[in-house]
Amino acid sequence: MDPAKHHSHSEVGLPPQRIQALADGIFAVAMTILVLELHVPQLGPAASDAGLLAALENLVPNILSFASGFVILGTVWIGHHYQFHYIRRSTRALLWINLVFLLIISSLPFVIGLVGTYGAMRVTCLLYGTTLLAAMACLLVQWRYAAGPSRRLVGHAVPQPVVTGLRNRVLMGMIGYGGGAVLALVSPRASLICYAVTPLLYLLPAGFDRHVRADE
Amino acid sequence: MDPAKHHSHSEVGLPPQRIQALADGIFAVAMTILVLELHVPQLGPAASDAGLLAALENLVPNILSFASGFVILGTVWIGHHYQFHYIRRSTRALLWINLVFLLIISSLPFVIGLVGTYGAMRVTCLLYGTTLLAAMACLLVQWRYAAGPSRRLVGHAVPQPVVTGLRNRVLMGMIGYGGGAVLALVSPRASLICYAVTPLLYLLPAGFDRHVRADE
Amino acid sequence: MDPAKHHSHSEVGLPPQRIQALADGIFAVAMTILVLELHVPQLGPAASDAGLLAALENLVPNILSFASGFVILGTVWIGHHYQFHYIRRSTRALLWINLVFLLIISSLPFVIGLVGTYGAMRVTCLLYGTTLLAAMACLLVQWRYAAGPSRRLVGHAVPQPVVTGLRNRVLMGMIGYGGGAVLALVSPRASLICYAVTPLLYLLPAGFDRHVRADE
Amino acid sequence: MDPAKHHSHSEVGLPPQRIQALADGIFAVAMTILVLELHVPQLGPAASDAGLLAALENLVPNILSFASGFVILGTVWIGHHYQFHYIRRSTRALLWINLVFLLIISSLPFVIGLVGTYGAMRVTCLLYGTTLLAAMACLLVQWRYAAGPSRRLVGHAVPQPVVTGLRNRVLMGMIGYGGGAVLALVSPRASLICYAVTPLLYLLPAGFDRHVRADE
Repeated sequence: MDPAKHHSHSEVGLPPQRIQALADGIFAVAMTILVLELHVPQLGPAASDAGLLAALENLVPNILSFASGFVILGTVWIGHHYQFHYIRRSTRALLWINLVFLLIISSLPFVIGLVGTYGAMRVTCLLYGTTLLAAMACLLVQWRYAAGPSRRLVGHAVPQPVVTGLRNRVLMGMIGYGGGAVLALVSPRASLICYAVTPLLYLLPAGFDRHVRADE
Repeated sequence: MDPAKHHSHSEVGLPPQRIQALADGIFAVAMTILVLELHVPQLGPAASDAGLLAALENLVPNILSFASGFVILGTVWIGHHYQFHYIRRSTRALLWINLVFLLIISSLPFVIGLVGTYGAMRVTCLLYGTTLLAAMACLLVQWRYAAGPSRRLVGHAVPQPVVTGLRNRVLMGMIGYGGGAVLALVSPRASLICYAVTPLLYLLPAGFDRHVRADE
Repeated sequence: MDPAKHHSHSEVGLPPQRIQALADGIFAVAMTILVLELHVPQLGPAASDAGLLAALENLVPNILSFASGFVILGTVWIGHHYQFHYIRRSTRALLWINLVFLLIISSLPFVIGLVGTYGAMRVTCLLYGTTLLAAMACLLVQWRYAAGPSRRLVGHAVPQPVVTGLRNRVLMGMIGYGGGAVLALVSPRASLICYAVTPLLYLLPAGFDRHVRADE
Repeated sequence: MDPAKHHSHSEVGLPPQRIQALADGIFAVAMTILVLELHVPQLGPAASDAGLLAALENLVPNILSFASGFVILGTVWIGHHYQFHYIRRSTRALLWINLVFLLIISSLPFVIGLVGTYGAMRVTCLLYGTTLLAAMACLLVQWRYAAGPSRRLVGHAVPQPVVTGLRNRVLMGMIGYGGGAVLALVSPRASLICYAVTPLLYLLPAGFDRHVRADE
């Protein structure tokens, strides 16, 4: 009588496509509105090539924080993308983990704007590192919830190296951004370099890459 | 001769994927541009860590209204997501219900910006509550239209506890936001707390959750 | 030898999903950033409920142009949605028709911002009407190109009443917006009413609605 | 034992749909926020039709750079669309090529804003051309990586004229934008005309068009 009886527990939930669509939308907007922190310089009618060049040079810190922030957001998106490649369904808890995650993501244009303007300050760098650490922590919680021992939301066919490898990739980011936040107390400049270098670590091929299948 | 004759009435309409895509896009933009209300403080060249910290403290009301507004929008999106999990086709009427719903959603960045700046005022809190109430009312109208007695747009296999449960979840929000709007007349501060707490009620598991199937 | 030989001419082209995705994204952004024209009033520390209410009253023209513009954009999106329900493939020409169409759509936030500020002026109302007329003209060109006598991009099973009906719905909008533009020369206020009423005509059921199938 | 053994090397990777979704989102936002550089003129209460018309005339350079930039971005998107029509899976390297590509795309609203304000300057025109050249170079790298001799990410059934033709279309843009950048050193105005004309070359039908199949 009860149609729920005909299904095993593992099928309870919603399809995961739509939360991916919302996430892709929020990442796309957050990554693109970073550029709104680059204001066209106002030089007046007497503008010259030299004057414009000098004004653009003043924007270099903003341009660097824009580019670095874009790449950081991109690698966080890649992490989300890999995890959802294996997540087969979403639950109320997964939706909420994503809600908190996306709240942090959507606050980054403000934090990155602060970095462009006050990059040399301890407060800014500490805030940047802890915000990025919090975003990665959400990915860790999500992966533990979805692919932990009970493999709640992923299929049982997912190779164990993928489960472990995706967790390790998140931990790598947490060490980079968390370490940068600690560094910020000593040297704000060094912490910014740490934040800029951390996403580049994701360029390294992962051991589990050869287990990832496009047709899964 | 008339190809319409070969189809039962229930198949008339458009597939519902594209209205979902537009809704996801509008939610993603609305949720992310909330951050544009957090302006990077302008401290001038004499900026210090202490000065920046003080400026960020001044932003706390804006940060709270940003975070709370994001979570509220997120739970409204979750409600929309659950309803469309069951909606099999869209009609002209459904498109218009969504148009009014999305108009209200896209006005929220302005209303939430008001709350960040004038959160202690009766006018602001009343406006916030009634806007949220109107958004939830659209979801109620949509669910009644789609899944009411005639089950116009959902399949007949949808379990009755899901039909009732999804309606009750919308009513819960209407009571929270409507009650907050009444409270605003007495105490604006209390109404803001009410608006912030209401979305957290959606963290509670729903009785119908075990009937929701990812492969439906 | 030549793989192209194995296909009939009608299969040449790209699948139409991705141009729909870009269009949905541009509509979502354009519709939502309309709200950025509603600026939070700056009342200073002496703000009172009465002062805020007065400031919001000053915003009423902007709020009306926001709401009306959102609904107009929504109905144009609905027209695009209906046409693409039948379009089976896209060609280079279809991509370019959409590029021009989306350029006009993305200019509307500026034009609607003008209407909010200078709604009583002839120049503004004329510009609004001609921009909307141009957007509808793109839809007419697209439908003629896709579903004209040769039925280039739609299947041959599309009922003729749908082909004619979708064309007539576009013509209805062109008459409304074009007529409004002419009216603007005499009375800007009357033209604004005309623009606000025209999208509501799309609330009327269409004769071809019963031929539209969700599972096509 | 090792599930990776059961798959050929060519299946390693992720499905390409989600990187397309992120790209579509970033293009949609970048193309639409171009309009934010068109500011509603502030004429005060004494505004007249003549005054508004004069203010809009002052905006003509901005309107031209908006329209031209939108069309340029649109043709770059079309190039990305055609390439991904054939790309069957994505790898870590492809994700990074896209990350760099999308970083350049999302910087264009700033660059195009500069062109609207300082279009007559050498620095601006040089920056515009090199940014566009860099975007096209990413498309060239992507196509070489995906469809080069080893046909790493595309099927072996892709006709050779398509592989060559898509590369040539990218080279055409690189010549146009790179040539424009060189021209900027002599005449900024001529380089702007070159940038505006280059995307129109993509209106020309391509020899490989008849090999492109919607149902591939």
